[in-house]
Amino acid sequence: MPSISSKGLAMPESPIRKLVPYAEAATKQGKHIYYLNIGQPDIKTPDCALEAVKKNDLEIVSYSHSAGFASYREKLANYYQKQGIPVNTEDIIITTGGSEALLFTMGSIADMDDEIIIPEPFYANYNGFATSSGVTVVPVTSSFEDGFALPPVSEFEKRITNKTKAIIICNPGNPTGYLYTKEEVEQLAALAKKHDLFLVADEVYREFAYEGKKHYSVLSQEGIEENAIMIDSVSKRYSMCGARIGCVVSKNKEFMATAMKFAQARLSPPTFAQIASEAALDTPQSYFDDVIEEYVDRRNTLIEALEKIDGVQVATPHGAFYCIVELPVEDAEDFAKWLLESYEYEGETVMIAPASGFYSTPNSGLKQVRIAYVLKKENLLKAVKILEEALKVYNK
Amino acid sequence: MPSISSKGLAMPESPIRKLVPYAEAATKQGKHIYYLNIGQPDIKTPDCALEAVKKNDLEIVSYSHSAGFASYREKLANYYQKQGIPVNTEDIIITTGGSEALLFTMGSIADMDDEIIIPEPFYANYNGFATSSGVTVVPVTSSFEDGFALPPVSEFEKRITNKTKAIIICNPGNPTGYLYTKEEVEQLAALAKKHDLFLVADEVYREFAYEGKKHYSVLSQEGIEENAIMIDSVSKRYSMCGARIGCVVSKNKEFMATAMKFAQARLSPPTFAQIASEAALDTPQSYFDDVIEEYVDRRNTLIEALEKIDGVQVATPHGAFYCIVELPVEDAEDFAKWLLESYEYEGETVMIAPASGFYSTPNSGLKQVRIAYVLKKENLLKAVKILEEALKVYNK
Ligand SMILES: Cc1ncc(COP(=O)(O)O)c(C=O)c1O
Ligand SMILES: Cc1ncc(COP(=O)(O)O)c(C=O)c1O
Repeated sequence: MPSISSKGLAMPESPIRKLVPYAEAATKQGKHIYYLNIGQPDIKTPDCALEAVKKNDLEIVSYSHSAGFASYREKLANYYQKQGIPVNTEDIIITTGGSEALLFTMGSIADMDDEIIIPEPFYANYNGFATSSGVTVVPVTSSFEDGFALPPVSEFEKRITNKTKAIIICNPGNPTGYLYTKEEVEQLAALAKKHDLFLVADEVYREFAYEGKKHYSVLSQEGIEENAIMIDSVSKRYSMCGARIGCVVSKNKEFMATAMKFAQARLSPPTFAQIASEAALDTPQSYFDDVIEEYVDRRNTLIEALEKIDGVQVATPHGAFYCIVELPVEDAEDFAKWLLESYEYEGETVMIAPASGFYSTPNSGLKQVRIAYVLKKENLLKAVKILEEALKVYNK
Repeated sequence: MPSISSKGLAMPESPIRKLVPYAEAATKQGKHIYYLNIGQPDIKTPDCALEAVKKNDLEIVSYSHSAGFASYREKLANYYQKQGIPVNTEDIIITTGGSEALLFTMGSIADMDDEIIIPEPFYANYNGFATSSGVTVVPVTSSFEDGFALPPVSEFEKRITNKTKAIIICNPGNPTGYLYTKEEVEQLAALAKKHDLFLVADEVYREFAYEGKKHYSVLSQEGIEENAIMIDSVSKRYSMCGARIGCVVSKNKEFMATAMKFAQARLSPPTFAQIASEAALDTPQSYFDDVIEEYVDRRNTLIEALEKIDGVQVATPHGAFYCIVELPVEDAEDFAKWLLESYEYEGETVMIAPASGFYSTPNSGLKQVRIAYVLKKENLLKAVKILEEALKVYNK
């Protein structure tokens, strides 16, 4: 029998997917599950995006330019400029989701066994992209107690070797909900410049910043034009995850020319989805205002309810729609499995994502789970109630 | 300044794209260009596919299952079964084009510096996928004189080392138009089995088989269930290249589980395009009959006209919509460039793809070009006329 590659064997399973068989079994048993484990918003996709697809008059669905529709890139550059991010059409390559933008980026900047430093806990699929690119992730642990603020820059500097090619941050953070301050981005920028590293910022949750806090893009930072790479996506911004449109944005021409070769090999990003994404740029501000209001409301509701539970602590998020919650259990993964397999409260249970899967350092975050507040308030409250009752039983 | 990876620097430019700047300059000069260089059909996408997208009633465009819609995979399995390819839903992962299927496949079966044997000339983007996967392509040259039939299996066997992981064939071939016989597939199957190699068949042009010749799928071959991997795509079958839907199909469970981890890391294939692709399975047979008739007609017209030109030879294709043409020039790339830069016939010129870019062995196919017959007959004839006149001038 032919053999699978070591790389293939090493590809990590997503920490979220691991529990899926248990959830499927629970559903078969007739249990209703509140899914707090996934980043799939329940918010409606903007009408202008949906309508544009319905009204498309394509007769031949042909390949687009490998960098995406010129018209879309132009409008997108405009959108960024309005947000104070000084980029032009030629600084943007449209990709199949932020996922592909991350893959192109890793491929363009790192060779086999090169290292990329990432503050943990981090978006678990960075591991998958790193493994498939043959790149080593070097974690810097951020702490629950600090709300997952940027660890001291000295901690990053300590880990820089001659194999280090980049630092990746996620801002605001999945799974932490942490929003980096301008000062934090500046510190990383100085470090990247000093050591000739790329500074990659995954900003797919850029619009989700709460309490009047402002998101500060890595591309707004002057003096690191050659170092800064931004990853973006329509998935969360327009609740349009299935479209599969994202982009990679940089002022570094050599990097962009390289990423473009990866883009050309795969021909083009999806056409219908580009139509939707281009139209989505006309989404009225009121849509975002409503969405942000909704998320703030959910976040407040969730946190207030969680903090009332004995022994439960929350790292209050200021962006995105996730938070890390510390539970009074020794092994949150076992608890999460148990919730699906062995527990129900009035016929219902909850699916949560064990946070250990978001850490690269073994045995970290064992008591933590990630909760996504992508459900309606009343469902969040029911889910927290179930967690509360479940903890009582589990801890007996 | 941070540095680009060696892999990024090594990423090949597509042989088709290389000439694009010259074409753009020619267009600016007001020259009209007949594009014989690209595999973008001018055939209308089936109405049922277009209508399904227009009529979609999604309110939230969410991530689909990482393997694609269950309903689509089921219908697709059915489609294959009807073609005598015995596969089930669980043997299929829907991908973002055949391109992504190739990437998942290479990642799953080969590590850094592992080798994959491919008969050349081959689809040039195999080089890109191999480079980005760190895999080495080992070519076996097929010959123009034989119409690019399978080289003797002994030529493959000679190249097998302990690093060889797979043989990839493209059937029918891009750029050759060659359709492998059942016997040829059987020979490769025996070889793959003997040496425990994967046998990957890129069958994205499966439906385009002419003169009553029947396509023989690698998955129809008994006894190599653990070795066989099929790559497919809706791009050419339904003239729907921009949808970006393909799939990887195999009975090898370990391989599929590995490919699935790559699929999960990138979340899901595009939703609108899956809607179109699922609906496209209802395309009536008459659509294909018309399309095949059209291509056969174009092929005959093209070849007849080309063979009338002094010194021009064609390797008659029996599938796909490409052919390799040998020109009476020393350097077809120079000629192709010259056509765009320095030549015009009644205000028009032709863009052709130099075939050397489809060979992995240096200095091969220097006199050859690939011509795609994706234009209407009258335009093909005009394009050939221009080539004829151009050759007279160029060869002076
Ligand atoms: C931090 C982060 N980056 C990137 C992605 C990839 O998203 P997509 O490929 O849908 O754009 C996600 C999706 O959840 C994410 O959370
Ligand atoms: C032989 C072959 N394989 C794969 C592809 C990739 O096609 P897609 O990614 O559009 O499915 C192409 C496209 O031209 C091709 O010619």
